[in-house]
Amino acid sequence: MADPRFFSVHGPFTLAELAKLSGAGLGSPADGSAVVRDVAPLESAGAADIGFLDNRLYADVFAVSKAGACIVEPRMAAKAPRGMALLLSKSPYRDYARVAAAFYPDSDAADVFDASAPVHPSARIGKDTVLGPGVLVGAKAEIGRGCRIGAYTVIGAGVVIGDDCVISSHVSLSHALIGNKVTIEAGARIGQEGFGFAPDGEGYLKVPQLGRTIIGDDVLIGANTTVDRGSGPDTVIGPGCMIDNLVHIGHNVELGRGCIMAGQVGFAGSTKLGEYVMAGGQVGFAGHLRIGRGARIAAKSGVMRDIPDGATYAGFPALPVRDWHRQTVALTRLVKGKRRDG
Amino acid sequence: MADPRFFSVHGPFTLAELAKLSGAGLGSPADGSAVVRDVAPLESAGAADIGFLDNRLYADVFAVSKAGACIVEPRMAAKAPRGMALLLSKSPYRDYARVAAAFYPDSDAADVFDASAPVHPSARIGKDTVLGPGVLVGAKAEIGRGCRIGAYTVIGAGVVIGDDCVISSHVSLSHALIGNKVTIEAGARIGQEGFGFAPDGEGYLKVPQLGRTIIGDDVLIGANTTVDRGSGPDTVIGPGCMIDNLVHIGHNVELGRGCIMAGQVGFAGSTKLGEYVMAGGQVGFAGHLRIGRGARIAAKSGVMRDIPDGATYAGFPALPVRDWHRQTVALTRLVKGKRRDG
Amino acid sequence: MADPRFFSVHGPFTLAELAKLSGAGLGSPADGSAVVRDVAPLESAGAADIGFLDNRLYADVFAVSKAGACIVEPRMAAKAPRGMALLLSKSPYRDYARVAAAFYPDSDAADVFDASAPVHPSARIGKDTVLGPGVLVGAKAEIGRGCRIGAYTVIGAGVVIGDDCVISSHVSLSHALIGNKVTIEAGARIGQEGFGFAPDGEGYLKVPQLGRTIIGDDVLIGANTTVDRGSGPDTVIGPGCMIDNLVHIGHNVELGRGCIMAGQVGFAGSTKLGEYVMAGGQVGFAGHLRIGRGARIAAKSGVMRDIPDGATYAGFPALPVRDWHRQTVALTRLVKGKRRDG
Repeated sequence: MADPRFFSVHGPFTLAELAKLSGAGLGSPADGSAVVRDVAPLESAGAADIGFLDNRLYADVFAVSKAGACIVEPRMAAKAPRGMALLLSKSPYRDYARVAAAFYPDSDAADVFDASAPVHPSARIGKDTVLGPGVLVGAKAEIGRGCRIGAYTVIGAGVVIGDDCVISSHVSLSHALIGNKVTIEAGARIGQEGFGFAPDGEGYLKVPQLGRTIIGDDVLIGANTTVDRGSGPDTVIGPGCMIDNLVHIGHNVELGRGCIMAGQVGFAGSTKLGEYVMAGGQVGFAGHLRIGRGARIAAKSGVMRDIPDGATYAGFPALPVRDWHRQTVALTRLVKGKRRDG
Repeated sequence: MADPRFFSVHGPFTLAELAKLSGAGLGSPADGSAVVRDVAPLESAGAADIGFLDNRLYADVFAVSKAGACIVEPRMAAKAPRGMALLLSKSPYRDYARVAAAFYPDSDAADVFDASAPVHPSARIGKDTVLGPGVLVGAKAEIGRGCRIGAYTVIGAGVVIGDDCVISSHVSLSHALIGNKVTIEAGARIGQEGFGFAPDGEGYLKVPQLGRTIIGDDVLIGANTTVDRGSGPDTVIGPGCMIDNLVHIGHNVELGRGCIMAGQVGFAGSTKLGEYVMAGGQVGFAGHLRIGRGARIAAKSGVMRDIPDGATYAGFPALPVRDWHRQTVALTRLVKGKRRDG
Repeated sequence: MADPRFFSVHGPFTLAELAKLSGAGLGSPADGSAVVRDVAPLESAGAADIGFLDNRLYADVFAVSKAGACIVEPRMAAKAPRGMALLLSKSPYRDYARVAAAFYPDSDAADVFDASAPVHPSARIGKDTVLGPGVLVGAKAEIGRGCRIGAYTVIGAGVVIGDDCVISSHVSLSHALIGNKVTIEAGARIGQEGFGFAPDGEGYLKVPQLGRTIIGDDVLIGANTTVDRGSGPDTVIGPGCMIDNLVHIGHNVELGRGCIMAGQVGFAGSTKLGEYVMAGGQVGFAGHLRIGRGARIAAKSGVMRDIPDGATYAGFPALPVRDWHRQTVALTRLVKGKRRDG
C-alpha cells in the first residue's frame, strides 16, 4: 500500500463499486462482490489490492501477479492468473486513475504548514542539526543528527532525512526517504508528483502518484535538479550516486549504486540503471529501459533501447560507441564524395 | 497597449521625439509631428501605436498593419501601408528597444513587496484559499476560491489566479493570468522577462518585455519549469496542457489546447503549436515555427521547420518519422559496408 | 590561494604529512620536508602551493608550473620542472581531493544565517538598495548602490554585488563576485559547489571546490540557470554576457565578453569561450575546449572539439555548418535511393 506517512487510504470498495465509478466492466458477475482495500503495482500487489495492465511490456508481470483484482483490456483477460478478479476496460490507465483517485482523493494535496510553528510539534530533529532561517518541517518528519538545512528549505510531512546531510537553501522535499551523508544543492525538487495522466475525452485525468522518492547514503543531488516521486512503485537513487545540476528524473526510475549523471540528463519514467552507470551531459533516456551495470553513455546521446552491462554507447539513437564512430566517419566520407561531385 | 495591471505607459511622444531618442530617421519630414501613444505588435497595433519590422517573416503582417507608425529598414519603406508614418533604421529592433524603453522605463522593475504586509491590502483572496507560510501577494493581485498556495511562493502585483488551483512552494509568478484548476509544481518561474535584446555597439540593449503569460484552465506546469512572458504579444499555454519539469518556454510561444510537453523540452520564441501536440523529452523547437494540430515529435528531436497537422516527426533536424527511420537504417547499412571493407 | 572571503585555509603541512594522509608516495625522501601552505591550480600556484596533474591536456602547464609541489602519476615525474617536490600517485585527482580536504575541511559548509539578523551586522548595503522580504545577507557581504533584491533571495557570506543590479526572487548566491548592472532572474543558483569527485574504492570522494563565480558588468542570468563556482580556478562570465533560462555552466568555464547562450545550453567543466560567442538553445559543450572569438553554434549542437574564431558550427558532433548541411543533404539522398529500391 502507499506509505501511510505520506498518503491516507480511503475505502474499502467492492469491485462492483469500482466498476461503477470507473466505467469499466466486470470480468464476471461474481467478481463484483470482491472487496478491494487498496491499489498497488502488479509486481507487489496482494489479495486485497487492485492493479492495472496498460503497457504490454508488463504482460509477464501480470501473468504471475498476486493482485486480487486488475484493470485490463478485454483481450488480455485470458492471461490473468487463476482467481484474479477483473475490471475490463478499453482504457485501463484512465480507469485506474479513477479507481486510484477513489482510494486516494487527497494524493496531490499540497503540504500545509503553519507559519506559527515552522517546525511541526510532531517532527523530530536530531542533535547538532542546524536549521536555517525560514526552514519548514512538516508533521512527523524526522531529521537525523548533524545535518545543516539551508534557508527556506521546505520539508514535507513524513519525510525522513538521515544523519550528516547538507541540504542547501530553497530546496523542496516531500514524499521522500533520504539516507545519511546526502548533499542536496539549492533549488532541487524532490518527491513532487510525477508526470502521470491518462486521456479522458478532450482532456487528461491526473493519475494519483502514490510512490516515494528514496535516496541512498552518500548521494549528491545538484542545483535545480528534479526527482519526481514514484507513481506506485518508488523512484530510487542508489547509494553513492552523483547527480549534477538541472537533471530530470521521472517517476519510477531506479539508479543503482554509484551512478554518475552529468548536467541536464533526463529520464522518462520507469527506466532502471544498474550500478555504476555513467551518463554525460544532456543524455536522454526513454522510458521502461534496462541499462546494464557499468554502462557508459556519451554526452548528448539519446538512449532508446536497453544497454548491456559494461557497454559504451553514443549517438542518437544511441549505438555501441564504435558503431557511432564508424557512422560519423562514413558520413564524413559521404560528404567528401558529394563535395568532389559538386 | 501593455496590460496596465503590469505596466505603466509614459508619453505620448511625437515621432520626431522618438526619432531623436532612438537615432532613427523620419520617413518624411511630415511624419515628425505624428503623435504616438504606445508601442504595440504590428498585428494588433492601432493608429496611435508604433510597431517595428525586423524579421522578414513578418513582412506580410507589416503590409496590412493598422499601426500609426513603424520602425523599419529603409528598403522596406515602399511596402508600408498608406498613411503609416515611418522611422527608418538600419537596426529596427535596437531602435524599437530604445522607443519601448521611453514608453515603459520601468518594465523590468522587480516587484517590491512589503514584509509588514505580505498580502497587499489591495489584493483579493477568494474563499477557502489557503496561503502557506511566507507567501507574498502583490498589489491588486487576485486569487480565486479553493486554491492552495505553497510556502514562499511569490505572486506579483496584478497577477490573476482562478479557482481551485494548487501552486506549490517556491514558485515565482508575475505578469500572469492563470485559469482555474491549474497545478504549478515547486520552483516554476512564470512571467519573468523573456530573452530579448538587440546589439548596440559592443553590448546589448535589453528590449522591454511588455506582454504577459496566459495560462488556461486545467494546465499542469512541472517543477523548475520556466515560462517567460511575451515581448509585446503574450505567451499562451492553452487549456489542459501538461508541461513536465525543467521545460523552457520562451516569449510569445503559444500552445494550443491539450498539448503535452515532456521533461526538458525547450522553445525559442514565437513558435505556435496547434491543439494536442505532443513532444517527447528534450525536444527543441526553433523560433517562429507553426506546428500543426495533433503533431507528435519524438524525444530529443530538433524541430527547425513547420510541421503539418497530424504528422509524426523525429530526429535532428526533425523529419517525418518514416524518413528518420530510413536514415537510421541507411546509416547502419553504410557502416556495415565500411566494416566489411575494413 | 582560495579567496579568504569564502574559504579558511588550515595547515601548513609538510609534504611527508600530505603523503601520509593522501596515501601518495614521495618523489624523493628529501621532498618530505617541503612545507606546503595551500593548494592551487598549476597555472597560478607558487612556491608554497601544491597542485595536481590528472589530465594530460595540461601536461604543458605542468612542465612550466611554479608550484612548489605537485601530485602526479609516476610516469609524469620526469617532466616536472626543476626543484618541484612531487607526490607520486596512481590517482592524482583522488589524492588531491584528500590533500585539499586537509587544507579546506569546511569548503562545503552551508552558509549559516541567523534568523534574528537577516542582514548580518558586518554586511554592507549601498544607498538606495532595496531588499525584498526575507532576503538574507551573510557576514561581510557587500551590496552596491541602487540594487533591488527580490524576496527570499539568499546572499552568502563574502559575496560582493556591484551597483544597479536587479536580482529577482528565490535566487541563491554564494562564493561570487558580481559586477554592476547585472540582472539575475528568479531561481538562479550562482556559486554552489561544482560537480567534482574522484573514484575512491566503491564510492566517490568529493573534491573541495575552492574557486569562485565571477560575473562581469551588464550580464543577464536567466531563470533557474545554474553557474557553479570554480574548483580552484574561477568560473567567469564576462561583461555583457546574456544567459537564458535553465542553462548549466560547470566549474571553471570562462565566457568572454558579450557571449549569448540560449535556453538550456549546458557546459561541462573548464571550457573557455572567446568574446561574442553565440550558442543556440540546448547546445552542449564538452569539457576543456577552446571556442574562438565570434564563433556561432547552431541550436542543439554537441560541441566536442575546439572551434576556431568566427566559425559557424552545427550538428552532433558539431561540424562547420556547411559540412553539416552537406551531411543532411547526403543523408536525404541516401534515403531516397533506398526508397526507390524498396
